Amino acid sequence: MATSSHSLLLQNPNRALLKTPSRSILPTTHLNTLKLPTKLISIRCAATTQTQDHRPLAQTQSQDRVFNFAAGPATLPENVLLKAESELYNWHGSGMSVMEMSHRGKEFLSIIQKAESNLRTLLKIPSEYAVLFLQGGATTQFAAIPLNLVKPDEPVDYLVTGSWGDKAFKEAQKFSKAKVIWSGKSDKYTRIPSFEGLEQSPDAKYLHICANETIHGVEFKDYPTPKNGLLLADMSSNFCSKPVDVSKFGIIYAGAQKNVGPSGVTIVIIRKDLIGNAQEITPIMLEYKIHADNNSLYNTPPCYGIYMCGLVFEDLLAQGGLEEVEKKNKKKAELLYSAIDGSNGFYRCPVERSVRSLMNVPFTLEKPELEAEFVKEAAKEKMVQLKGHRSVGGMRASIYNAMPLAGVEKLVAFMKDFQSRHA
Amino acid sequence: MATSSHSLLLQNPNRALLKTPSRSILPTTHLNTLKLPTKLISIRCAATTQTQDHRPLAQTQSQDRVFNFAAGPATLPENVLLKAESELYNWHGSGMSVMEMSHRGKEFLSIIQKAESNLRTLLKIPSEYAVLFLQGGATTQFAAIPLNLVKPDEPVDYLVTGSWGDKAFKEAQKFSKAKVIWSGKSDKYTRIPSFEGLEQSPDAKYLHICANETIHGVEFKDYPTPKNGLLLADMSSNFCSKPVDVSKFGIIYAGAQKNVGPSGVTIVIIRKDLIGNAQEITPIMLEYKIHADNNSLYNTPPCYGIYMCGLVFEDLLAQGGLEEVEKKNKKKAELLYSAIDGSNGFYRCPVERSVRSLMNVPFTLEKPELEAEFVKEAAKEKMVQLKGHRSVGGMRASIYNAMPLAGVEKLVAFMKDFQSRHA
Repeated sequence: MATSSHSLLLQNPNRALLKTPSRSILPTTHLNTLKLPTKLISIRCAATTQTQDHRPLAQTQSQDRVFNFAAGPATLPENVLLKAESELYNWHGSGMSVMEMSHRGKEFLSIIQKAESNLRTLLKIPSEYAVLFLQGGATTQFAAIPLNLVKPDEPVDYLVTGSWGDKAFKEAQKFSKAKVIWSGKSDKYTRIPSFEGLEQSPDAKYLHICANETIHGVEFKDYPTPKNGLLLADMSSNFCSKPVDVSKFGIIYAGAQKNVGPSGVTIVIIRKDLIGNAQEITPIMLEYKIHADNNSLYNTPPCYGIYMCGLVFEDLLAQGGLEEVEKKNKKKAELLYSAIDGSNGFYRCPVERSVRSLMNVPFTLEKPELEAEFVKEAAKEKMVQLKGHRSVGGMRASIYNAMPLAGVEKLVAFMKDFQSRHA
Repeated sequence: MATSSHSLLLQNPNRALLKTPSRSILPTTHLNTLKLPTKLISIRCAATTQTQDHRPLAQTQSQDRVFNFAAGPATLPENVLLKAESELYNWHGSGMSVMEMSHRGKEFLSIIQKAESNLRTLLKIPSEYAVLFLQGGATTQFAAIPLNLVKPDEPVDYLVTGSWGDKAFKEAQKFSKAKVIWSGKSDKYTRIPSFEGLEQSPDAKYLHICANETIHGVEFKDYPTPKNGLLLADMSSNFCSKPVDVSKFGIIYAGAQKNVGPSGVTIVIIRKDLIGNAQEITPIMLEYKIHADNNSLYNTPPCYGIYMCGLVFEDLLAQGGLEEVEKKNKKKAELLYSAIDGSNGFYRCPVERSVRSLMNVPFTLEKPELEAEFVKEAAKEKMVQLKGHRSVGGMRASIYNAMPLAGVEKLVAFMKDFQSRHA
């Protein structure tokens, strides 16, 4: 039954599954967990009755959900959650939850290998790159990168377009001669500089960027060319939101908890020739070589999180891959930015238009005293986590891959209504 | 409904819930996820019919499960899995999965605070100790401990009773003057020395032990007194398996994936006065101070894993706390060791009797050529992961808190039968 549920989901790309009063979803998902070898029919009967009633079952489920605009951990695809629910107690008839599996057993090996393989397909990752599933978030990588790539006295460049790039720089100072070659701080992190005028250090071993600043909503639309050819990017908050030419980068890394899974998994995509030169003071868990040599199984990895990422990767492939995902993300972002820009200044987005993030949309109200009311009323309408980061204030709508278009449409309608009542 | 499900579990200590043909479990668990505001009765009817039939519903569910003797990730309590399943899609009516919650939102804050509070109750953790929920496994702590507690030229002692203690020592050498004051290696890690004869370094800043060696099955039954008063213990594989006097320790740390949750969560219990002296080269994610100052929310924690640990802590409290849990663990271990010792040498456990682990039971066969057959036949009987660690061979049965007595009884019966056929 697990297999049939699986293929069913794949056959229903745009989560249409949940909007169709299909009788497949109930028996498959829930009877899977009921585990009644006999008299199964009594339950099936009930489920079938619902379908015959043409009640909007899936819509009712969806209506139970809030639209969650959190910056991460963030909303996950509803069909991925339903699949996880259906498999939680007993994965594919193994008699175990994925949470109980030995990380060295054949069941989990199949899960992690499939997750890696699907991610490689999604991002067209060249074979010269290793894919690592690690722990500790992007913040751990802020240290791991200089520790693995350079010596303490070697220069490295940081292009700082927001709080996360700044944190990466500060951590790198402990382990390298890190330099900020450009910072958007004086402009409150609202823009990205022209790459032509960038004064890179002549002997910098790498250039680090944060490809999408979660707090400030600034996103690179193309990438600078570092002098020595090594570009590194923190893609935590726009990972797998659009196609990326991996071959342009030495390392791409991302916490999973925005676009591809729950928190607790960090994905590192690293060119293999960069592995194996860690400083002596590198804690073993921060050494890329040990993880690459052991296929991310040097010690016990965050198995369940990796499993969830795998389900999300399947879902993204089923949607048609990252080209299709990007189209949807652009449509959602355009809708929201248009509403802000068309509000005659009632709503304002401080970010320069050409580098506005498709993922995180910060905005303020002309009358800041209304912001608390805005957040409160939105929550009543089941749109939550719209408050801006505590360091910048205002509002922020994070509209990751898994935010349905309907969520953005509802937010935009609410914004217009709120404006009409408060302008 | 979530609340009623919750209290139901608490009312059913020894997972009797699953062995009773109670009608509560089905409607509560599964209708929770069905989310049918209308015509709920049609499903309830089906479920009720089963109960009226007195079919052994819960036993049927249990029979679907294997007995999983893996060393970690390991078996979890069945009622915890069912509760997680019932809450996965929509936690307590929040309209979100726990996996989707902002780690700074009120919902997740209530989860992590309750988890910490219940753990404090379970282990009677004094208020002078901080409880941290981290990432990276015990292996990350092997570095974090010397990095946070001593300077690079300061001496520290390691008492090595197995592979994990040895790994901790090797990592500590990078960041301190670490010394092995006793090693069981020449005895193949089968014993623990008398504490009286231990030659501790006179100026060692701490004494580190691994309280239970997962691979070798050696467990401290009491603890040495370090010269300067600071005892540190890796309790990954016997954490929360019995009462522990926390006040004897400077730090207790444990990966969750043996007794208290899925992999991806590391729990550190640390005396607060030890926090705040990290070496300058400490990556920020390995600094205890940053995590203590931020209540484990400096960056995004492994939220879902922490939630699962919280469910397990509730379950352990409902069982009557760690005194009761220890009684059950002793009973299981005695049953298994008796079977080994009473086999006239057909099965052998190499570990000295006084320090045999209640959690990990390694054993060999008199005829090693039968070991593969043993593992294969056991798997056919739905007893899995009995193969010993690749570094030592033989067999190993890990019988953590969540392994039901029935699992050990079944294993022992199988062992006797296997012996009768192969002796």
